[in-house]
Amino acid sequence: MTDTTHRTTAIILAAGLGTRMKSRLPKALHRLGNQPMINHLITTARQVFDDVVVVTGPDMPELEQAVHPFRTVTQVERLGTAHAANAARNLFGAGDIAVLYADNPLITAETMEHLLAARRQGASLALLGMRPAVPGRYGRIVEDHGKVVKIVEFKDATEDERRITLCNAGVMCAGAEDFRNWLENVRNDNAQGEYYLTDVVEMAAKAGSVVCVEAPEDELAGVNSRSELARAEATLQTRLRNAAMDAGVTLVAPETVFFSTDTVLEADVTVEPNVFFGPGVTVRSGALIRAYSHLEGCTVGEGAMIGPYARLRPGTVCAAHTHVGNFVELKNVELGEGAKANHLTYLGDASVGSGTNVGAGTITCNYDGVFKHRTVIGERVFVGSNAILVAPVTIGDDALVAAGSVITDDVPAGDLALGRARQALKSGRGLQIKQSLKARKEQG
Amino acid sequence: MTDTTHRTTAIILAAGLGTRMKSRLPKALHRLGNQPMINHLITTARQVFDDVVVVTGPDMPELEQAVHPFRTVTQVERLGTAHAANAARNLFGAGDIAVLYADNPLITAETMEHLLAARRQGASLALLGMRPAVPGRYGRIVEDHGKVVKIVEFKDATEDERRITLCNAGVMCAGAEDFRNWLENVRNDNAQGEYYLTDVVEMAAKAGSVVCVEAPEDELAGVNSRSELARAEATLQTRLRNAAMDAGVTLVAPETVFFSTDTVLEADVTVEPNVFFGPGVTVRSGALIRAYSHLEGCTVGEGAMIGPYARLRPGTVCAAHTHVGNFVELKNVELGEGAKANHLTYLGDASVGSGTNVGAGTITCNYDGVFKHRTVIGERVFVGSNAILVAPVTIGDDALVAAGSVITDDVPAGDLALGRARQALKSGRGLQIKQSLKARKEQG
Amino acid sequence: MTDTTHRTTAIILAAGLGTRMKSRLPKALHRLGNQPMINHLITTARQVFDDVVVVTGPDMPELEQAVHPFRTVTQVERLGTAHAANAARNLFGAGDIAVLYADNPLITAETMEHLLAARRQGASLALLGMRPAVPGRYGRIVEDHGKVVKIVEFKDATEDERRITLCNAGVMCAGAEDFRNWLENVRNDNAQGEYYLTDVVEMAAKAGSVVCVEAPEDELAGVNSRSELARAEATLQTRLRNAAMDAGVTLVAPETVFFSTDTVLEADVTVEPNVFFGPGVTVRSGALIRAYSHLEGCTVGEGAMIGPYARLRPGTVCAAHTHVGNFVELKNVELGEGAKANHLTYLGDASVGSGTNVGAGTITCNYDGVFKHRTVIGERVFVGSNAILVAPVTIGDDALVAAGSVITDDVPAGDLALGRARQALKSGRGLQIKQSLKARKEQG
Repeated sequence: MTDTTHRTTAIILAAGLGTRMKSRLPKALHRLGNQPMINHLITTARQVFDDVVVVTGPDMPELEQAVHPFRTVTQVERLGTAHAANAARNLFGAGDIAVLYADNPLITAETMEHLLAARRQGASLALLGMRPAVPGRYGRIVEDHGKVVKIVEFKDATEDERRITLCNAGVMCAGAEDFRNWLENVRNDNAQGEYYLTDVVEMAAKAGSVVCVEAPEDELAGVNSRSELARAEATLQTRLRNAAMDAGVTLVAPETVFFSTDTVLEADVTVEPNVFFGPGVTVRSGALIRAYSHLEGCTVGEGAMIGPYARLRPGTVCAAHTHVGNFVELKNVELGEGAKANHLTYLGDASVGSGTNVGAGTITCNYDGVFKHRTVIGERVFVGSNAILVAPVTIGDDALVAAGSVITDDVPAGDLALGRARQALKSGRGLQIKQSLKARKEQG
Repeated sequence: MTDTTHRTTAIILAAGLGTRMKSRLPKALHRLGNQPMINHLITTARQVFDDVVVVTGPDMPELEQAVHPFRTVTQVERLGTAHAANAARNLFGAGDIAVLYADNPLITAETMEHLLAARRQGASLALLGMRPAVPGRYGRIVEDHGKVVKIVEFKDATEDERRITLCNAGVMCAGAEDFRNWLENVRNDNAQGEYYLTDVVEMAAKAGSVVCVEAPEDELAGVNSRSELARAEATLQTRLRNAAMDAGVTLVAPETVFFSTDTVLEADVTVEPNVFFGPGVTVRSGALIRAYSHLEGCTVGEGAMIGPYARLRPGTVCAAHTHVGNFVELKNVELGEGAKANHLTYLGDASVGSGTNVGAGTITCNYDGVFKHRTVIGERVFVGSNAILVAPVTIGDDALVAAGSVITDDVPAGDLALGRARQALKSGRGLQIKQSLKARKEQG
Repeated sequence: MTDTTHRTTAIILAAGLGTRMKSRLPKALHRLGNQPMINHLITTARQVFDDVVVVTGPDMPELEQAVHPFRTVTQVERLGTAHAANAARNLFGAGDIAVLYADNPLITAETMEHLLAARRQGASLALLGMRPAVPGRYGRIVEDHGKVVKIVEFKDATEDERRITLCNAGVMCAGAEDFRNWLENVRNDNAQGEYYLTDVVEMAAKAGSVVCVEAPEDELAGVNSRSELARAEATLQTRLRNAAMDAGVTLVAPETVFFSTDTVLEADVTVEPNVFFGPGVTVRSGALIRAYSHLEGCTVGEGAMIGPYARLRPGTVCAAHTHVGNFVELKNVELGEGAKANHLTYLGDASVGSGTNVGAGTITCNYDGVFKHRTVIGERVFVGSNAILVAPVTIGDDALVAAGSVITDDVPAGDLALGRARQALKSGRGLQIKQSLKARKEQG
């Protein structure tokens, strides 16, 4: 053995097309927790391993892009898992390497640590096993006195072996040089003509001792179909929901709240049913996120009240004690302390000063068809209902915008701005119009 | 036996009032998958049987209407299941008939085929049985060497018979002439004074062989209360969700997506949590249906992005690569390729050309209180925010509608249309108004 | 015994800080079914007991406020459950008292009645027990011939005692004077130096007979963490959903509908998926509440159609056959029979006459930054789309408000009111603007 270094490398096999997914997208790019599952796995692997190498298939430019800047190797032909791992042999380095699978994205850092620890405590090879509720056709791990003897495929297993409940998850860890040697010796004299990574186990058992590290089934369940993808998402969401509740967040109906892996909710945040957290959300203590709200790339301050039916889009920062109400969309908006936008409003590329009230139906015209422009609203401004703010435009502190106004020019501080027509009445004409319409209808 | 023809008829018993539903609506009209459960059952039965006859109760005009154009027979008095089946005897025809129940709406076509096959393979009568998790007070099917001997009601069953796990679901199939004969011989000398269809089984067993076809409990569970209706809906939704995923659709959270039985989603459609598909929806490959969207009677093209909070109503066709954003309602709208309506918009009875951008807050006034009128918007039009388009009105290609305009007349191609007041400023008046309001408040 | 009266008092221990909740809020104020759990428990207790006394901790002013007008006693130091109960000794009265816990909020009135009945049938003390699926570290109730001998803490229990499945829930009922005597004799010579209420059981067993009343685990499961709070909410919601369905309400997807404890839905109401009922909602027979609707403090009349995406806020009364459509918010609004507000509307502090149609995008400006004002709309009025109604304002019967109008003055009955600018066209200018913007973009 020449493993004189402790440098560790995770080799992630991601060349699979995922035929059962029935997708044009490579399997590794299907999403979990609002990110491609390969990125999910890489993030976890990076907490444990020094290096990550991804084995991709040919013609997968989106995959290469998604995993950038991690190194990739292309498995040109798909000739089995050992062949895939072997494609990365020049990047194994000198320490320990572990083989992971893009379609096993939910392995925790803790389990990866256990695997690595088993290897470091002297196993020639450490592998992950699980005891599924329904072992089915999984390969079985045959042990003798706590040491793994071999892995037997279900179809080749004896009756006794099939009764073994410990199943092979495929994940394994060994010294780089050993691995390279073993991979060279894997043969494809089987029905499929493929090179199987499991063959390495028997070689490792002969060379030293193979140790099986057990992990829960839900970490190791593979994602090979959309149903399995949904199940993995459910497992991930359950983890994220429990973590939030453990941290002091009230989830009225946890099963209806959807998190991204990077969602940050402080203690004493309350989340009502049916809330969706896209990537990049932070919510401070005491904030209330009401039902049917949808947040992405935003920060919500202390004691703020968001929703119901509020949509906060990327770039939005709602300061402490702000209120964002129903059918309100904020995109790239800074909402100052205590500011309110409570009804049927679209603010885009805007800043709103503290204490300002944005009336129902207010719309910033931030887009002219080609360029985006900013709207700047000062402090303690009262924007009347259904105001249209044609950006670029600035409204000074303490200004008042009359309801129904189209604002195309800057409004100085303290001014009243109007931009609407005077009301006119036509006596009796309302009833006349209705009657004539009805008469026309009756005539057909 | 005179069954010289293979013509098959399903007799659906639908006269039940459903007292436990506590409803003014006949039980058969309660809805599953966005249609009355009787229609659900008829649709399945029509895949297997040549004819369908519905036995209704007296005074059920809505039911007769719902099942049109299928033939109905009225069971004038409610004297038991055999009495109900007998009401349809003149419509049995000459082939095989099967008795189904409106409150057993989830039997699959596959199970119906199995029932019919058993009959055709020589059974004098074939019936459906199930093995419920809790057999409870179901009638038990007593078999001897694979042949059914009789059905014993729970209350009449011996201890041994109660241990039988195969339960009677009531559904049966036999030759029309036999059935007519047996029904004539059913007697009502029981506590309730009713004619029970189960009595036929013993007659059939004497006349030949009765075969039991087993089906899963969730197909045969009856709907007699709102809770059971909800359970049946859940069973149906699970089937529809699994079928979608098997076809290559990503459902991020399947348990939060509601389908109609006719929903069509192509492979590589992605559906975020909390989406509702009413009847008549087709979504093409690559489209993304975002959270909290509600679709009915519409088609969504390839690569389109719908939602969050988008509502597509009947008659709407969103072409490829269209975007429909939050708090947007489209009713009877054709949205051309790449067109966008992203925020707080109502378009009704309109066509929108390709490449057109409909600004935030745009509203088509399609209704004058009596008539509905159309709005026609050309290609590459830029409709500014909060524009009001008073139909009937046409906006030409490449036109520009200024934000906040009320458009009552046609806009020629390439023109700029404005319909809004000029902005005016009153210096210092904003602050004054606020101060005077506050002063008034302080004075009480 | 001096229990010459049948007056009954519930002592609710609510001083707990709930460290595992990780909250600044006292545990008893965390919410279930849209009210603090202490109020939930008080409401139930008041159905069974004559008096309620709440034992609070020091510095819990919000708790005192929440339970007003019920009497409170402060447990100044937290020295155990017996010490907490003893803090209320002067309010025990002369009849029976029961000790309940703020963090056991889901005990039903029926279970409380059973407890009280057991006491009245001669038990010196009656206590509640449960048989949890996982008994874990709960204290075990040791019985002999149907009488409770003692409660043994898990850590002190023998192997045999640990096999007992009947677990202590802590709730107990006894005569006031006995209770006072026993509490005086409880000692704190244990590891924690606390006074435990369970010690009373052995005293009561010596003084007479102690009887255990069993109740379901989900009634007695404690709320000590946010996860347990979510579980209790789920239990409560399941009860409320089942009660609604038993009463003849269709819940298409019960698990997605959220109730308050006081929600009233009449028979033949239909509720689509994802509906939220805040406090104070009544919905009359035949009404349809569509998906993603959010109702609080409102009444919905017979045959009304609400949603999808409708928000009804407190003070709103929708008469029979009204329609409230998508992205519509009503706050403190009376909507007359058959009136409609179907799209993108905010009505606040308004009354709308019967038969009136409120167009898309209509907004009442009910707030001037300081005061709120009312809008009164008559019968059979047609409010055109995007109308802005600046309150206080009255619109007479049969009036017509033109689309896009800003209405600042009253509109007499039958009149047509307009308040919008005339449309102007600038020939070719639309295309020119677009081209010049694009040219500018290309120049960078």
